[in-house]
Amino acid sequence: MTTMRRKDKEIAAEEAVRLLTECEYGVLSTIDADGQPYGIPLNYVYTDHQLYFHCALSGHKLDNIQSNPRVSFCVVGHCKVLPSRFGTEYESAVAFGVASEAHGPERHAALLALLSKYSADYMEEGKAYIQKHDADTRVIKISITRISGKISPAKPKP
Amino acid sequence: MTTMRRKDKEIAAEEAVRLLTECEYGVLSTIDADGQPYGIPLNYVYTDHQLYFHCALSGHKLDNIQSNPRVSFCVVGHCKVLPSRFGTEYESAVAFGVASEAHGPERHAALLALLSKYSADYMEEGKAYIQKHDADTRVIKISITRISGKISPAKPKP
Repeated sequence: MTTMRRKDKEIAAEEAVRLLTECEYGVLSTIDADGQPYGIPLNYVYTDHQLYFHCALSGHKLDNIQSNPRVSFCVVGHCKVLPSRFGTEYESAVAFGVASEAHGPERHAALLALLSKYSADYMEEGKAYIQKHDADTRVIKISITRISGKISPAKPKP
Repeated sequence: MTTMRRKDKEIAAEEAVRLLTECEYGVLSTIDADGQPYGIPLNYVYTDHQLYFHCALSGHKLDNIQSNPRVSFCVVGHCKVLPSRFGTEYESAVAFGVASEAHGPERHAALLALLSKYSADYMEEGKAYIQKHDADTRVIKISITRISGKISPAKPKP
């Protein structure tokens, strides 16, 4: 894989994992059957070094994943424009991986992990919601092969 | 191109253009020479139905664009998790297009448009900054071929 050009902007793997754990949404990049890249925002959960998201039974991103399971997933944490410095302060992480549908106990655990991330105060209602929509929900896993993280401007050396 | 599955979530082209105009950053999705999708956040400006961003003379996204100029660019506007509704309210737009390097007056106009978007109170200092970094800056144009926008949950019908 390509390594990062600006080593001073690279963040440690633990910090990239922190971003993947904490961010509210990320952008999933896939490729369609015709070779066109496609990036869309998604809610997701990071657990056991995998990413999971849920979706409807059909759609553009599912078509793409079925024809080409290689994906990347980008999250942005703190982000602040610095007008007088002609730059932006931000932290971001990119996970590269392979997407596949999750089934059985893994699927159920991922739905509960999503519930716990986004609706921790509504766990019981959420479990009923999951059951109600069980037949029209797919869960997709991204098996992460590599994570990289970046911070800009580079943190001053201590 | 694939059309959107949920027509009730689709937003009008003008609203997608508003998002592209107003958002602070977007995620550029490209494909590397090996077929791996790659999405990263970028500052950018939308002007004359084109997107422009600037970058260093070399790097991963430039390599990708040189081997495959087809890209997509995703922006997210208002975004709010609704814990009790097990969903998220958000608005997003995706522009599909072809990336190429901008030169001459077009390149200069794009740098001024970026300056005006991000550092409107520092135009004179910004012009000096542009001149100082002229030799180590590339400007990339995304010639937009299609824009789509989405809002979720769907706006109630009036």
